[in-house]
Amino acid sequence: MSSALLTDRYELTMLDAALASGLAGRRAVFEVFARRLPTGRRFGIVAGQGRLAGLLAELRYEPEDIAALRDVVRPQTRDWLTGRRPGVEVTAYPEGAAWSPGSPVLTVEGGFGEGLLLETLVLSVLNADSAVASAAARMVLAAGDRPLLEMGGRRTHEQAAVSAARAAYIAGFTATSNLEAGRRHGVPTVGTTAHAFVLAHASERDAVRAQVAAQGVGTTVLVDTFDSGQGIRTAVEVAGPQLGAIRLDSGDPSVEVPRARALLDELGATGTRIVVTGDLDEHAIAALAGVPVDRYGVGTALVTGSGAPTAGFVYKLVAIAGSAAPGAPLRAVEKHSVGKSTRGGRKWAWRMPDGSELLRRTHQAPDGGIALQAPLTTHDDVRGARATCARTLAALPADARRLDPGGPAWTAQLEDDR
Amino acid sequence: MSSALLTDRYELTMLDAALASGLAGRRAVFEVFARRLPTGRRFGIVAGQGRLAGLLAELRYEPEDIAALRDVVRPQTRDWLTGRRPGVEVTAYPEGAAWSPGSPVLTVEGGFGEGLLLETLVLSVLNADSAVASAAARMVLAAGDRPLLEMGGRRTHEQAAVSAARAAYIAGFTATSNLEAGRRHGVPTVGTTAHAFVLAHASERDAVRAQVAAQGVGTTVLVDTFDSGQGIRTAVEVAGPQLGAIRLDSGDPSVEVPRARALLDELGATGTRIVVTGDLDEHAIAALAGVPVDRYGVGTALVTGSGAPTAGFVYKLVAIAGSAAPGAPLRAVEKHSVGKSTRGGRKWAWRMPDGSELLRRTHQAPDGGIALQAPLTTHDDVRGARATCARTLAALPADARRLDPGGPAWTAQLEDDR
Repeated sequence: MSSALLTDRYELTMLDAALASGLAGRRAVFEVFARRLPTGRRFGIVAGQGRLAGLLAELRYEPEDIAALRDVVRPQTRDWLTGRRPGVEVTAYPEGAAWSPGSPVLTVEGGFGEGLLLETLVLSVLNADSAVASAAARMVLAAGDRPLLEMGGRRTHEQAAVSAARAAYIAGFTATSNLEAGRRHGVPTVGTTAHAFVLAHASERDAVRAQVAAQGVGTTVLVDTFDSGQGIRTAVEVAGPQLGAIRLDSGDPSVEVPRARALLDELGATGTRIVVTGDLDEHAIAALAGVPVDRYGVGTALVTGSGAPTAGFVYKLVAIAGSAAPGAPLRAVEKHSVGKSTRGGRKWAWRMPDGSELLRRTHQAPDGGIALQAPLTTHDDVRGARATCARTLAALPADARRLDPGGPAWTAQLEDDR
Repeated sequence: MSSALLTDRYELTMLDAALASGLAGRRAVFEVFARRLPTGRRFGIVAGQGRLAGLLAELRYEPEDIAALRDVVRPQTRDWLTGRRPGVEVTAYPEGAAWSPGSPVLTVEGGFGEGLLLETLVLSVLNADSAVASAAARMVLAAGDRPLLEMGGRRTHEQAAVSAARAAYIAGFTATSNLEAGRRHGVPTVGTTAHAFVLAHASERDAVRAQVAAQGVGTTVLVDTFDSGQGIRTAVEVAGPQLGAIRLDSGDPSVEVPRARALLDELGATGTRIVVTGDLDEHAIAALAGVPVDRYGVGTALVTGSGAPTAGFVYKLVAIAGSAAPGAPLRAVEKHSVGKSTRGGRKWAWRMPDGSELLRRTHQAPDGGIALQAPLTTHDDVRGARATCARTLAALPADARRLDPGGPAWTAQLEDDR
């Protein structure tokens, strides 16, 4: 099915009214921004642009979509929509860049009617993917040089799982358990066995034998089904000291991991790595910094945004032409709703040499500023976004890197307001 | 694309090893349950079974899926998978039923290898949909007779949005803003205009005129773009006292709503309803019980599970045959991992006359017990699930209906353990 109806009904009914009143053809600008960071967060990572670009490139109203709008809009509006592809210009922050309150992470310029239609799809993609990327980035900071594996697909919608694996990889995770994320987005995949595999065999030893026979001694053996000490002995006896890794999924890793490391070393398996999984989040990862963990597997906390399951982006009209005549000048508009006011007019954004974010109402670059907005391309460059995020995290101010609750490490400042 | 790869890599690598060792063909039983309710919750609603049934009915390994597994499993395993449809028997609680810790909400019986393959897809669907349905049910209890509208699609993944609208409708919401949920699942849709529509016009009055011209006087006018008192006056002046409804999206509704009601009545618009939106959750809804709200629109809190974005279901092997011979008896299996132990053997579940949930290791019904498990059908009966949930909520014990944090109102009790 097409993605034309992955939207809110009011976008279609507004279009319907705007076509009737002649407003739909006026040039307009919509901006996507967040009023605040999730509580306690010091920065956010914006993600989803590559996925969004693909969805927008495919977006059109096919006859079956039009048929579903019979009771929603007038026949003239259905005719207007038929076969239409939104002809708007979209600019955005690079995928993997940092955002703060007020950052115009995505801008849509084009006909008012067509701009209206994109609101929900744009927000769904950016809010979901940025929530995961923002949480993942904090885990990446907490883990330091140790690889992180994404394993949370089972805790979220089956399609959100694929996007979450992509967002985590962009933020710096090493791999995912999700096979569709491997196919669709090129994310490396990992996985060996679960407890079911051990339980299905007559003994733990039989299970490890079967696993090693199929996957080789470089595999990762899950050792905590019955007793992890005995599980480790069995794994090393069967696979030999060349065993690739063991996985611990229960108990207190600050106790279990040093014990496992000592036992592995005693058994001569000094090169066998230890993978820890089971309800980890950025705080648990940080607390294990002094413990000899080799890899972290993260599930629930990652795909649910570690307490912030949505990024809080909104999509707001900031300017519209006074008439539909070509070249009619844009007029800034802003709402004054209590606690939800907006700042009118299109904003251009730059990263300044001191790490701050400067917004101007002009396209002219400030001295030393690096432009944060660029046209959205239809190429979904996951590896490029991953590189962008790595640079972003390396350049974060020290305050932003802290995991304890705090305010935004910086705020996007509109020049006029200074 | 098929849903064959919406899964974790370890399911395929386990299958690979199980085919090699001869275990894949043994009859096995997997159960889905949660060890605990989300913190503070007194009951959960299980949802997603209808959606899952459709996904399972379509599930098969097409050549393009098999090609993607080239580096994951051996050629023999790819051959085994080619064109295969999992031939398992699935039983489940009715969609819209209540669950508590230990409830075996879904059971898979069939070949060990085929059962392994379903784990992630089953959990993704049930965890996502049940998280939304469980939060939605609390909002339904809080709202009493007042209708609830689902508007959260923009705060979650674009496909999760559609499923969330379906789950909310099952839990008792009246309608959704999501058009795809209307098409795909038959959920009634609603929506009129956003702030952008008001801002796009030269004046608020022009905007209301355009809206009423297109949608009639029965429409809902958003009145808080500039000043809600003035917005209400303008709406009633343009539409007349027959105006369908106004929507308030900002400010403190405990103050704004009584003021709006008084003004509407003063203007003669005594039948005009008041719709409140903007960061509502079950607690905010309950707090507005004494305020003349007519409808609640709920977004973020609904689609993110109101603090519990995943239901916490796990998928565990509980029994497997000792051999692949037809009729070989099942052996109960259970893991002993610290804090994550399981209870072996297949469990049958009944709702008892006192509202409690009884589990037995036999298929024989206890006196007065109503069976909770039934074969999963491929018909996605959304309205039937909605009726089930309405009956479920009506029958909840008083303790379960409370919104303040508490423990489970009941626990699924295994007869042996009594």
